[in-house]
Amino acid sequence: MRIGMVAKVDLEEAVELASKIINFLEEKEVEIVIDQSLALKLNKSQDRAVKLKDMEADVVVAVGGDGTILRTQSYISPKKIPLFGINMGTVGFLTEIDSENAFEALEEFLAGNYFVEKRTQLRVWHNNELPSALNEVVLMTRKPAKMLHIQIEVDDEIVEELRADGLIIATPSGSTAYSMSAGGPIVDPRVGAFIIVPICPFKLGARPTVVANESQIRVKLLKEGKKAIAVIDGQFEEEINYMDEIIFQKSEYCAYFVRFTKNFYRKVREKLIQGGIN
Amino acid sequence: MRIGMVAKVDLEEAVELASKIINFLEEKEVEIVIDQSLALKLNKSQDRAVKLKDMEADVVVAVGGDGTILRTQSYISPKKIPLFGINMGTVGFLTEIDSENAFEALEEFLAGNYFVEKRTQLRVWHNNELPSALNEVVLMTRKPAKMLHIQIEVDDEIVEELRADGLIIATPSGSTAYSMSAGGPIVDPRVGAFIIVPICPFKLGARPTVVANESQIRVKLLKEGKKAIAVIDGQFEEEINYMDEIIFQKSEYCAYFVRFTKNFYRKVREKLIQGGIN
Amino acid sequence: MRIGMVAKVDLEEAVELASKIINFLEEKEVEIVIDQSLALKLNKSQDRAVKLKDMEADVVVAVGGDGTILRTQSYISPKKIPLFGINMGTVGFLTEIDSENAFEALEEFLAGNYFVEKRTQLRVWHNNELPSALNEVVLMTRKPAKMLHIQIEVDDEIVEELRADGLIIATPSGSTAYSMSAGGPIVDPRVGAFIIVPICPFKLGARPTVVANESQIRVKLLKEGKKAIAVIDGQFEEEINYMDEIIFQKSEYCAYFVRFTKNFYRKVREKLIQGGIN
Amino acid sequence: MRIGMVAKVDLEEAVELASKIINFLEEKEVEIVIDQSLALKLNKSQDRAVKLKDMEADVVVAVGGDGTILRTQSYISPKKIPLFGINMGTVGFLTEIDSENAFEALEEFLAGNYFVEKRTQLRVWHNNELPSALNEVVLMTRKPAKMLHIQIEVDDEIVEELRADGLIIATPSGSTAYSMSAGGPIVDPRVGAFIIVPICPFKLGARPTVVANESQIRVKLLKEGKKAIAVIDGQFEEEINYMDEIIFQKSEYCAYFVRFTKNFYRKVREKLIQGGIN
Repeated sequence: MRIGMVAKVDLEEAVELASKIINFLEEKEVEIVIDQSLALKLNKSQDRAVKLKDMEADVVVAVGGDGTILRTQSYISPKKIPLFGINMGTVGFLTEIDSENAFEALEEFLAGNYFVEKRTQLRVWHNNELPSALNEVVLMTRKPAKMLHIQIEVDDEIVEELRADGLIIATPSGSTAYSMSAGGPIVDPRVGAFIIVPICPFKLGARPTVVANESQIRVKLLKEGKKAIAVIDGQFEEEINYMDEIIFQKSEYCAYFVRFTKNFYRKVREKLIQGGIN
Repeated sequence: MRIGMVAKVDLEEAVELASKIINFLEEKEVEIVIDQSLALKLNKSQDRAVKLKDMEADVVVAVGGDGTILRTQSYISPKKIPLFGINMGTVGFLTEIDSENAFEALEEFLAGNYFVEKRTQLRVWHNNELPSALNEVVLMTRKPAKMLHIQIEVDDEIVEELRADGLIIATPSGSTAYSMSAGGPIVDPRVGAFIIVPICPFKLGARPTVVANESQIRVKLLKEGKKAIAVIDGQFEEEINYMDEIIFQKSEYCAYFVRFTKNFYRKVREKLIQGGIN
Repeated sequence: MRIGMVAKVDLEEAVELASKIINFLEEKEVEIVIDQSLALKLNKSQDRAVKLKDMEADVVVAVGGDGTILRTQSYISPKKIPLFGINMGTVGFLTEIDSENAFEALEEFLAGNYFVEKRTQLRVWHNNELPSALNEVVLMTRKPAKMLHIQIEVDDEIVEELRADGLIIATPSGSTAYSMSAGGPIVDPRVGAFIIVPICPFKLGARPTVVANESQIRVKLLKEGKKAIAVIDGQFEEEINYMDEIIFQKSEYCAYFVRFTKNFYRKVREKLIQGGIN
Repeated sequence: MRIGMVAKVDLEEAVELASKIINFLEEKEVEIVIDQSLALKLNKSQDRAVKLKDMEADVVVAVGGDGTILRTQSYISPKKIPLFGINMGTVGFLTEIDSENAFEALEEFLAGNYFVEKRTQLRVWHNNELPSALNEVVLMTRKPAKMLHIQIEVDDEIVEELRADGLIIATPSGSTAYSMSAGGPIVDPRVGAFIIVPICPFKLGARPTVVANESQIRVKLLKEGKKAIAVIDGQFEEEINYMDEIIFQKSEYCAYFVRFTKNFYRKVREKLIQGGIN
């Protein structure tokens, strides 16, 4: 068993927790490889340091926020390495482990009491290929309170032409994130689908649409002069010009997450309550 | 090529049109079998008369409303016989052919210019097996303006416990019918999914949920004393008592429809406009 | 100070609590009049017994569910007598006092630490005048899962013609009850408005409409053969035939409720959370 | 009768139409005053030229888009001068007259066949007073796809604390504009109310709220570091910092519009259909 170690190096608590986890794993005599920037920060021997993109391991433990976890995942998913994400303070849906239950979860993991959950990803092209999305791609205007004029095609059939503040293309994983706030349905991760959700559509009858993830989705900006941006998983931004096309398709690579309980719906319900005032 | 012929016998226009279609097909020297009740009505020789459930044909032409088409389809789908439905005046989604374009469509069909669309069906159990649903099963209270208290499980995981006027379990075909009025998403028929939509839920955050059609859905009535009915495709009614369970699963039989154009989304958009004031 | 006393006589706990309240008030030397049916049940002297419709008092205490409170209120509101409702086990919005805090609240009341909240009511005509609504009037089909075809006029201007499962005409008080489940907005009781909310409209763009409470609302059933029922505050039912008109207008009588805290929005938020699974 | 004349001077068609209207009115011997910048553009005598803010007239005719009409209206509404807006190509709700029916409408106006519609406006303070809103104020994040953390108070009672992409405070006039796309109800202009609509709220149960226009609405940005902008009627922008308060109240000045038909609901229905694909 070889475990890779990654942390958000500009967040002190993340670095500290990563350091403790390395000690913990060393005591257990687990083989460890450390992301170069973390190794540097921790003054660890460069023998075990490796660039994230070259990391080979049975699992990678990543400590940080959504950004760290998404970035780590993007490097390791093509190698089918599962991610053991430890969440530092965000309300993210990507991990179920936080700093308080980290060591307990590691014990469970080493004892083999876990399973690996596979999540579909969304490939995105705009001129060139952009980073894949685990949750969603959001198309929005650069200026707040202005509308986009959009045409949506699925497998060369026109689905809808609409004016809206924006458009979300989400995976089932993303169905319980931003897509849900914009009125999208909850989609079980076992469904082979993507979800297309308009944000504040001018046309009142416009509805979220669930399409097969074998389909190719093409979105075109119709109105002259309007610019948009595509935001991928809340992390990566790309500018989109008038008449540009953005193309979406299922990635050949899935994301793999270490999980301890099968509880998709319980987490959804907790999230719904969490959304409230307290 | 053998064509089966069915019509709504208590609707004069349907019987007349069926009669003309039989003449038309006889001229083309197509072999015809006729549903017994229609043959009787038309005074046709009993040689070609056969009970709908025993009908063997390459395609069955059904003339009538949604009820006729759904009933015919339920008999022929286990034999994988495609249905050529001719719509008499309803706004149904089940056919794209109406009395005005019937003969033109038959010509196209005989020339081979068609394809067969396969639609998933939903099996339903309540004590015994009920008729399968092509569109949806609606659970509602017997009395208007009273709420049901419902628990929903998917593959033995509790999805939601809620109070609502009712609950819809829909196929992708049904996603553009009643489910849409209750707030459900449009689901492309190529998606392997069922849609669970609460009707007027007391809990405001309750959302439509899209689950894999490989899953088993179990719905239980929780509140003592409340009775409900299950309405299948708007045609069949079954009474449901307190603590009863209704179980939903994908049917091993699909429904097969003769189609001439690939136009799911165009029909959806037309329907949305049709919904308006005229 | 004279206090009237009403209770749901077929609910033992309600009668018991009413009896204790009478004793409590007698000790305080408050003048009491008792609803005839309650007096009979309690074997109280007929001197103090009076029919509810003839009751004259500075306040009326009603112990029971929504039905009891609504019925009592309908008798006393024309005389502007405020209602001190004590809620027995329902989740009603009409009272903030339950059996546990009843005596504490009575003490506060006798000390003058309360205010009277005034709520608008909705008059309803269908051929003759029907009981007024405090919360809402719901128009629905007699048969579940069938649609009504409705025309709505406000001050002789056609607002909308639509097909839907039903229609709600609600007061601001009712905006946080059934209307909210059907997608209606929260309307502050200080707004002089009624809310028109379609239930599961076939036309997807249909929206809740807020109209001035000085307006006259006329609703007509358009489709031949379809029957509907009007349900007033969940208590009273009236059958509506094809082409019948129902007319709605602000009542000249308000309802008056004894309140201890100004907390409309806190109660709304609590209700929203209450709606969830626990 | 004295008529003021305003046009969007950098839009050639607007200037041309204004010129024709001036000729038309001169032939009718109507007294005319002309906005200074338009007079300059048209080489009209400076005798009749006047700054918009100093314009005194019985009615002001404004030719241009939403921006021109809103700006003109903001200057003349404190003097209760009604606005005769002529719409150049936008889909605005503010005028019912476009370039094609302009002269016909002017004839009707001069014949006295019109009425003046009064619309409530919303005053806005953030440190100082900002321009009043005829339609709505939108609070949004500066960066797309980030959420605001907001607290809303009405008359010192906390209504809601929520995270959302943004928040709309709309007048009844604005209820059929952006507010409607975000899920708000249609509010009849005769209702004395403002509408509070969250945009893509994280909390799924969050609902549009209709409050009395006698109320004071206070909105505070809660989360450290997050900046927002307030956009008034799509025209004016103001930056809002963390912990800043924005205060909303009914303006003492109404806007006055020349109208020819009482048709609020017909226009709403047309707009709903207009929103569709063509």
